[in-house]
Amino acid sequence: MLQIAIVGGTGYTGVELIRLLSSHPKVNIKWLTSRSEAGKPVASIFPSLRGISELTYSDLGEDTLSALTQCDVVFFATPHGVAMQQAEALVAAGVKVIDLAADFRLQSLQDFEHWYKHKHACPDLLKQAAYGLPEINRDAIKSASVIGNPGCYPTTAILGLKPVIEAQNLASDALIEPRIIIDAKSGVSGAGRQAKLSLNYAETTDNFSAYGVAGHRHLPEIEQGVHVLLQSKFTQNIRFVPHLVPMIRGMFSTIHLGLTEAGCQLDLQAIYEQAYKDEPFIDVLPAGEFPDTRSVRASNRLRIAVHQNNSNKEATILVVQDNLVKGAAGQAVQCMNVMFGFEESLGLNHVPVVP
Amino acid sequence: MLQIAIVGGTGYTGVELIRLLSSHPKVNIKWLTSRSEAGKPVASIFPSLRGISELTYSDLGEDTLSALTQCDVVFFATPHGVAMQQAEALVAAGVKVIDLAADFRLQSLQDFEHWYKHKHACPDLLKQAAYGLPEINRDAIKSASVIGNPGCYPTTAILGLKPVIEAQNLASDALIEPRIIIDAKSGVSGAGRQAKLSLNYAETTDNFSAYGVAGHRHLPEIEQGVHVLLQSKFTQNIRFVPHLVPMIRGMFSTIHLGLTEAGCQLDLQAIYEQAYKDEPFIDVLPAGEFPDTRSVRASNRLRIAVHQNNSNKEATILVVQDNLVKGAAGQAVQCMNVMFGFEESLGLNHVPVVP
Amino acid sequence: MLQIAIVGGTGYTGVELIRLLSSHPKVNIKWLTSRSEAGKPVASIFPSLRGISELTYSDLGEDTLSALTQCDVVFFATPHGVAMQQAEALVAAGVKVIDLAADFRLQSLQDFEHWYKHKHACPDLLKQAAYGLPEINRDAIKSASVIGNPGCYPTTAILGLKPVIEAQNLASDALIEPRIIIDAKSGVSGAGRQAKLSLNYAETTDNFSAYGVAGHRHLPEIEQGVHVLLQSKFTQNIRFVPHLVPMIRGMFSTIHLGLTEAGCQLDLQAIYEQAYKDEPFIDVLPAGEFPDTRSVRASNRLRIAVHQNNSNKEATILVVQDNLVKGAAGQAVQCMNVMFGFEESLGLNHVPVVP
Amino acid sequence: MLQIAIVGGTGYTGVELIRLLSSHPKVNIKWLTSRSEAGKPVASIFPSLRGISELTYSDLGEDTLSALTQCDVVFFATPHGVAMQQAEALVAAGVKVIDLAADFRLQSLQDFEHWYKHKHACPDLLKQAAYGLPEINRDAIKSASVIGNPGCYPTTAILGLKPVIEAQNLASDALIEPRIIIDAKSGVSGAGRQAKLSLNYAETTDNFSAYGVAGHRHLPEIEQGVHVLLQSKFTQNIRFVPHLVPMIRGMFSTIHLGLTEAGCQLDLQAIYEQAYKDEPFIDVLPAGEFPDTRSVRASNRLRIAVHQNNSNKEATILVVQDNLVKGAAGQAVQCMNVMFGFEESLGLNHVPVVP
Repeated sequence: MLQIAIVGGTGYTGVELIRLLSSHPKVNIKWLTSRSEAGKPVASIFPSLRGISELTYSDLGEDTLSALTQCDVVFFATPHGVAMQQAEALVAAGVKVIDLAADFRLQSLQDFEHWYKHKHACPDLLKQAAYGLPEINRDAIKSASVIGNPGCYPTTAILGLKPVIEAQNLASDALIEPRIIIDAKSGVSGAGRQAKLSLNYAETTDNFSAYGVAGHRHLPEIEQGVHVLLQSKFTQNIRFVPHLVPMIRGMFSTIHLGLTEAGCQLDLQAIYEQAYKDEPFIDVLPAGEFPDTRSVRASNRLRIAVHQNNSNKEATILVVQDNLVKGAAGQAVQCMNVMFGFEESLGLNHVPVVP
Repeated sequence: MLQIAIVGGTGYTGVELIRLLSSHPKVNIKWLTSRSEAGKPVASIFPSLRGISELTYSDLGEDTLSALTQCDVVFFATPHGVAMQQAEALVAAGVKVIDLAADFRLQSLQDFEHWYKHKHACPDLLKQAAYGLPEINRDAIKSASVIGNPGCYPTTAILGLKPVIEAQNLASDALIEPRIIIDAKSGVSGAGRQAKLSLNYAETTDNFSAYGVAGHRHLPEIEQGVHVLLQSKFTQNIRFVPHLVPMIRGMFSTIHLGLTEAGCQLDLQAIYEQAYKDEPFIDVLPAGEFPDTRSVRASNRLRIAVHQNNSNKEATILVVQDNLVKGAAGQAVQCMNVMFGFEESLGLNHVPVVP
Repeated sequence: MLQIAIVGGTGYTGVELIRLLSSHPKVNIKWLTSRSEAGKPVASIFPSLRGISELTYSDLGEDTLSALTQCDVVFFATPHGVAMQQAEALVAAGVKVIDLAADFRLQSLQDFEHWYKHKHACPDLLKQAAYGLPEINRDAIKSASVIGNPGCYPTTAILGLKPVIEAQNLASDALIEPRIIIDAKSGVSGAGRQAKLSLNYAETTDNFSAYGVAGHRHLPEIEQGVHVLLQSKFTQNIRFVPHLVPMIRGMFSTIHLGLTEAGCQLDLQAIYEQAYKDEPFIDVLPAGEFPDTRSVRASNRLRIAVHQNNSNKEATILVVQDNLVKGAAGQAVQCMNVMFGFEESLGLNHVPVVP
Repeated sequence: MLQIAIVGGTGYTGVELIRLLSSHPKVNIKWLTSRSEAGKPVASIFPSLRGISELTYSDLGEDTLSALTQCDVVFFATPHGVAMQQAEALVAAGVKVIDLAADFRLQSLQDFEHWYKHKHACPDLLKQAAYGLPEINRDAIKSASVIGNPGCYPTTAILGLKPVIEAQNLASDALIEPRIIIDAKSGVSGAGRQAKLSLNYAETTDNFSAYGVAGHRHLPEIEQGVHVLLQSKFTQNIRFVPHLVPMIRGMFSTIHLGLTEAGCQLDLQAIYEQAYKDEPFIDVLPAGEFPDTRSVRASNRLRIAVHQNNSNKEATILVVQDNLVKGAAGQAVQCMNVMFGFEESLGLNHVPVVP
């Protein structure tokens, strides 16, 4: 049994990690930490876990390092800036680190510091960190000591673009017009478990809004995914506009592509199906279908529909995931499975909850 | 034109007062106060009011009294304990006071201090205050200087019980068995405009819960309504259990009565219709129908259905209102109309918004 | 591996059975039938099952009996009146039958025919059927060939009342006053997967309503549970009023009890904890806490809170469950586990999905 | 008083017309027709109207024409294909016709017949019909006998594009890159008041989906608005993708524009403010703000935010409206006000309902 720790287990990604890991056959949650709730049973904060988890929150204080080094892997479900303070010592002690926040996502220190307003605490370790998106980075994850678990929006954007970008890399000409538009929509749980007026039920429900139009910190991560990880040889400009949907979980990204003449020659449906045919969590829908977010609710699946319209020289790629699973905790567990040589879907075969 | 002030206009009852009063033909909102938002246009806090209200929040500071005494009536949409600090001076200056909080609801100082944890600042003025439920207290409201605007739950409970209690007062025997159960359900806006984790969308939606089972501050107000204002000559015990419904506005009270033999002789449908036939805002549904909360959404109406089941010796009274209108701001405007001799429904004829 | 069939797998209880049974380690779904969708993959109707279930709907037609008798157990997720047409032949062939509809719930033919408007097709078999609520009827279920899986409301009502009724059975005097009020609230999935104007999103959301006040078919089932199965020696009158909540899943029953002097002597919290201490799916909350429906979402748990108020001579029992799991499909699987000697919670240890 | 008729008053646009017109100071609703509900009071179908409207549905049958010609204006809140059967006779009798369906929206017969699958019944009258969007077509509406009231999506798209298209018309070069993306999101009431499984609450809530990606009948209407009515001299290609949001009312259109070098020279904020400064219902938000749909709930306002990003050579135009008001019934009343010389906002000054 792998011994694991969850640092910061009071947020939505934390409780989702507990949900997923408490029924994973190869792990034991040894530590669950929280400064604010130290000493309380997790079930007193999340009554949904009564009878399921006997875990109690710990404030490890000065013993943090010695306690966490009893583990094989530590998940950080903390705000940005926490994992990077502890990662070096953990890695030095042979412990793997999976950060669900942004400390190890962006290789560009400048981008990190611009968007997250933190000076990076361990730039050397950052260079060795793997971006935790198995479908594009599996080999690096296998051997990495530190994982920067992707942001929720970038997961949909990068996986939604991967097949067409790779096809373009193989082609002599650009397949896509210069502007890629990612019009993304997220459920409210994406904003985290916090007391905030704008997230109050009466403010949020029966309402729809946009935010971050002037710039969102997930944009540089999407750009890194497309231009660096997927090594796009063309420099399409990416425009990303996120919106807030009155639903708990679920993320829907509508990717608008203009197709060049060369792009119109392709059979994108076939390309997408081929690209993902061996991926356990990626589902390309049959031609002409539409995904909806509930079809992946509470599961680690991500579904993609490809709509190609040559007469209009357009393609629309529709991507859905559960932002807390494939967009956060499930992806982190998937990375752990990869790192430790488990079957990649071990403990992640939840059937989506419908209705 | 009546000059009015709204003290504390940043909560949900405040913005609802603005919605109602800004289209009332006989009033002018002279002052809108808020310490936290002073200097800002109301439309910067509530963009729904852009192009509709030019009001700006004021912090009147030391000039509060002199400013407010330029008004004919001051509405307090503040937390409990604020209105009672200013009411005496205002009344002395000839200004009418309508408090939407609880400072002037309970005549029993002991109850007030027990449930609201404030020592009352003006017990003498409290004695002269009228309970602002026109359908049971119209004459007192007409001549009062201070109105304690009813709580939302008590409005449904007292109006739901009034006809049967009055029938019982005229009868020689009790019509109702000793236990009256009020199982009440409220939309989330009833909890106010506040940043609170338990009110976060992701905590509240797709969920249903109870609260205050051990005791809720609206219970003594319901008891006062039934035993004092309606002068019930029997001492039925009232049990009140509130619940939280994932909807913005709306309140639904299910009142469970056991009928005595004498009670079974009555035609409650006829009694209710008769009791409310002249009331502009109370609608008794035809026999056999069910109200739903949306049928009163954004309007000052309260609808009642009476289900009498003699074989089971039971009656179920179903009451719906919009908690922010008839349960708060609309009722306050209705009281104002009564106090100043306007037609009682003036400015309150909004058609419920369906769907 | 147990071979099983699901007859009528296009409704919400059907798809929930598929969700639960497709990850149950001891069963294989051999047949999934539907007349309207025959020939279609289940994943074409429920895209949530893409990549998870390869099942295809069959219309067995004239071969129904021979096909179903290849199974060990047949689940009927059909409307009332279907299972009773096929149950006798199946039982004669040695196949166990679990009906999720009402055909085998009510032992009184008169009640069945009154409430369900069907003449019962196999009254003799009905006599041998076991009411499928393991917590009160485990022994009968073990040896039964036919299970009448309980209604969703009765599950909450009977389990919410069981400890106090049993305590009363042991006492010389009644503990509860003559009227038991069950004020129940259900999510919309309880109304089934159907095209119906009153269930349209724009009709249902941001709204709360009551229904069935004059009488609901779950009332005789609750009465049977209390008076026959729990053998209550007192004849308290049960009043049941259901309501519709704008949420997908979840059921909340508020049970209002008047306590007699003898009842006030009890420690109901201890009685409830004792009564359910060995039950894998029943959770009695600590004193003073409140359950919410999401704490059991997508799981087979049922949680109960006991609020005893001796000064008011009242007790309020709050019960929550997921209407599609413990209130339907999960309970059916639990019965199957009991019937076949599996661990009772086998395949039913889903962690509730929060948020 | 204007005498008016509403043909087909049982849908959501019908009941919204009743809500708006029943408090309009210059009209009297003389007829409200419905074949299916003939003889029933409107309040029996919409209990929200109890005590507000005494109207009863009529099936005028053979007397339709003689009855409707008693009116000054007839609103058709019927499915596509109905108004065009009756419009000629009404116009011949001097009655104005406002069709809320699509019969008089598209001047191209070919487009109409392609998208709506009806042969047009009165092509000559169609040529005289005015497209009922006062902000771009006020003069034509003033003198028209027949109004094709715009579709909900086109209202947001055309008004969201008008200022920049007009600016481009004045410029020598294109300001916008060749592809205009309209990523639109609508509340569920836009799908109408119908019993349909896909609109069932349990299918729709906590869910987000796209539809009509391959082509939607509102696209030719948007193209007509931009290319014909606004006389765009450049032929930007318009891509329109609609989505369904789990909310009752509200429409949010995100318009993604690529800016040319010339486009980047503009101050779009100033251009939009200038373009709409005299429009009573169009609100251009201050720079940097985001609209949300609830800020226009139940009102005839449409709010626009302009986000210009020259470094990325992009502009994002965000448009919100209530799909049933400015997107349907409110716009129809606005047209009526224009046609009859009333103040354009008469009877349309509803304050948005927030929360």
